[in-house]
Amino acid sequence: MQTGTVNPRAAHLSLALRHVADSADGISRAGIAARTGLNRSTASSLIDELINGGLVKETGSYKGAPRAGRPGTALALRDDGPAGLGIDVNVDYTAVCVVDLTGALRYKHVLAEDQRGLSTREILDRIARLARGAQQAADADGLTLCGSAVAVPGIVDRAHTKVTLAPNLGWRDLDVNEVLPAGLHGTPALLDNEANYAALSESALLRRRASYLFVSGQIGVGSGIVLDGALYRGAHGWSGEIGHLPVDRDGPPCSCGRRGCLERYAGQEAILRAAGMTENAGTTFGVRPTVAMLADRARDGCPATLQALTRAGQILGYTLAACLNLLDLTHVVLGGIYRELAPWMAPPIERELATQFLGAAWSRPTVQVSTYGPEAPAMGAARSVIHDVLTNPSRWLNLHPVRPSAPPRSGR
Amino acid sequence: MQTGTVNPRAAHLSLALRHVADSADGISRAGIAARTGLNRSTASSLIDELINGGLVKETGSYKGAPRAGRPGTALALRDDGPAGLGIDVNVDYTAVCVVDLTGALRYKHVLAEDQRGLSTREILDRIARLARGAQQAADADGLTLCGSAVAVPGIVDRAHTKVTLAPNLGWRDLDVNEVLPAGLHGTPALLDNEANYAALSESALLRRRASYLFVSGQIGVGSGIVLDGALYRGAHGWSGEIGHLPVDRDGPPCSCGRRGCLERYAGQEAILRAAGMTENAGTTFGVRPTVAMLADRARDGCPATLQALTRAGQILGYTLAACLNLLDLTHVVLGGIYRELAPWMAPPIERELATQFLGAAWSRPTVQVSTYGPEAPAMGAARSVIHDVLTNPSRWLNLHPVRPSAPPRSGR
Repeated sequence: MQTGTVNPRAAHLSLALRHVADSADGISRAGIAARTGLNRSTASSLIDELINGGLVKETGSYKGAPRAGRPGTALALRDDGPAGLGIDVNVDYTAVCVVDLTGALRYKHVLAEDQRGLSTREILDRIARLARGAQQAADADGLTLCGSAVAVPGIVDRAHTKVTLAPNLGWRDLDVNEVLPAGLHGTPALLDNEANYAALSESALLRRRASYLFVSGQIGVGSGIVLDGALYRGAHGWSGEIGHLPVDRDGPPCSCGRRGCLERYAGQEAILRAAGMTENAGTTFGVRPTVAMLADRARDGCPATLQALTRAGQILGYTLAACLNLLDLTHVVLGGIYRELAPWMAPPIERELATQFLGAAWSRPTVQVSTYGPEAPAMGAARSVIHDVLTNPSRWLNLHPVRPSAPPRSGR
Repeated sequence: MQTGTVNPRAAHLSLALRHVADSADGISRAGIAARTGLNRSTASSLIDELINGGLVKETGSYKGAPRAGRPGTALALRDDGPAGLGIDVNVDYTAVCVVDLTGALRYKHVLAEDQRGLSTREILDRIARLARGAQQAADADGLTLCGSAVAVPGIVDRAHTKVTLAPNLGWRDLDVNEVLPAGLHGTPALLDNEANYAALSESALLRRRASYLFVSGQIGVGSGIVLDGALYRGAHGWSGEIGHLPVDRDGPPCSCGRRGCLERYAGQEAILRAAGMTENAGTTFGVRPTVAMLADRARDGCPATLQALTRAGQILGYTLAACLNLLDLTHVVLGGIYRELAPWMAPPIERELATQFLGAAWSRPTVQVSTYGPEAPAMGAARSVIHDVLTNPSRWLNLHPVRPSAPPRSGR
């Protein structure tokens, strides 16, 4: 049981705003009152506060279920108010996104440059430069950035403010906020694992409170666990660590010090190596082999490539089935490199799930590819900022006091 | 985000009651007002309603932090009001418990009789008989049974009203409520997996909102996943299925149709067999070998028994480490047969967790034995009934309307 103090006004503002957010076809003040159980004058005053605070707008006559009395005014979230900044720092790319209160993507920039060999300072300068570009784009678009979130390929502290360990970036106990331009929105950036944020990019699944495992293939293999539309983060925020689940205790040595971890069979480097595309064999390519090259070979029907992808799919599927059995989830979203490799990896994954998931007779596991490509973690990070505004609108309202109909700050 | 209607009075009653429940040293009306953020007259009227409804009592002068004005009256949960009935149907025993609103055990009966070979009808008759005994004990103790919960060794439907499959009892799609004496409290019994309910018996961990994996060894191996004091049930309520996690894909065949599942190495029958205590070797014992006999042999220093227990602990620990990595939990509670076998199985389990849990450098995994023995699932089931009253007191108050200080129904 959770206990704690409750500010009834703040709780009611949040409830009213969430009903506006969840009503895709608009909702009237009377509808808010009916759905929340609050009386009409209270509901109406809450909506006035949300309108004055720039979170909700009136969009004309409400066309919903007819009621006695004059027709209500339809309400919707504003798309020119607060916006969230999402940043994804990965090993071979960096991405930024800006998302408005309605969840729409308003700006995106993916920089496909490898970070290996760069110093922490150089990587952080790159992030700050991308964040400044996003800030300028948001300003030009009339949006107010109200927070930022950074996706990292590693684990973060429980307060989501420091990177505990991101081995592939060489980061340990790093306070990203010391170098990020936090001043741009007044609050420190929050951090989370990239697979957790990527899972939050699946807005259609989240809207219908779905439960799923988002599997993100990169250099490592991570996952985000979503139950009834909410992320399961675990006791420290480290949940979803599937890359080091054991496949074969006597298998090849892994960077974690153990042997035969999933990453050694289904991680990006492992699949490339199994398909014969190693850096040593790089003379064939002249450059570091990529997943795009692997997909090209698969499309060309290269037998070694197809065999490597099928085998990786089998092992990934077998391990995922164990995860689904433990977590009681039946839907898998393939993200990261698995999105591009899904034409060849999804069939063996589905076959393994169908035979290895214990509840398959009652609920057959399903697999889909992620909606977004490399920008998924940045999208999810930006959406997590917006989610915080929708859940706790009082914080935004306190920072942006009630403004009259002609906003004084814009000078008009 | 969850949306839905809110009945402010019901939500505030729940909040006030939870603050009384969480205040081990008592709390005053002023304390309730301060902690909930409600004004004092509202808080006082909520408390009056909870007192009149028989959930809360006044226990004398409140000795808490001094305040201006007259001293408040200390409030506490009543231990003579609603009580929960918990029933556990397992393969080789049946147990019932009655728990009062404070969470205290008031009645317990464990019937150590094997159910193998009995018909569903015979098993259900046995349950009904035990439930009637508990009802009589509750009546005699002045308690009002307000609900019941049944722990089963299998999976239940999402509404928690039917057994979907309990293979070791031979049950499939069984509506337990059709035969249980539901009339005794007016609401149908709720059902859940025995490991889930056993996890809820750890009241000290739950009170401090701990996160842990409760591992229950029986004929099968199950687990209950608790995050921040709340059960993670998964998408269908089937979570925690660890008995069929793969240990060795080429291992011995399992009843589930796969090979090398954990149950084949760490389940009760597997450990007995590894120690040489099979039914075929039963001539040595004359009776079906039991875990108690195994523990006796271990205490006597029997090398084959000690070796079997160490090996089972290693395999269980290795698999648990993978679960902890996925779930981000660092505390394990050993229940069921592992409680009795902990002196020999806990050390190898701890060694595996220390080396195989990825976050061990930041948060070392810990292991404890369960507080309760065979009655753990029935205790947790009964407590889940009480938890529902504490979370939703309005339902109880509506069924038991405000009574004046001299309760009319008792005739006094």
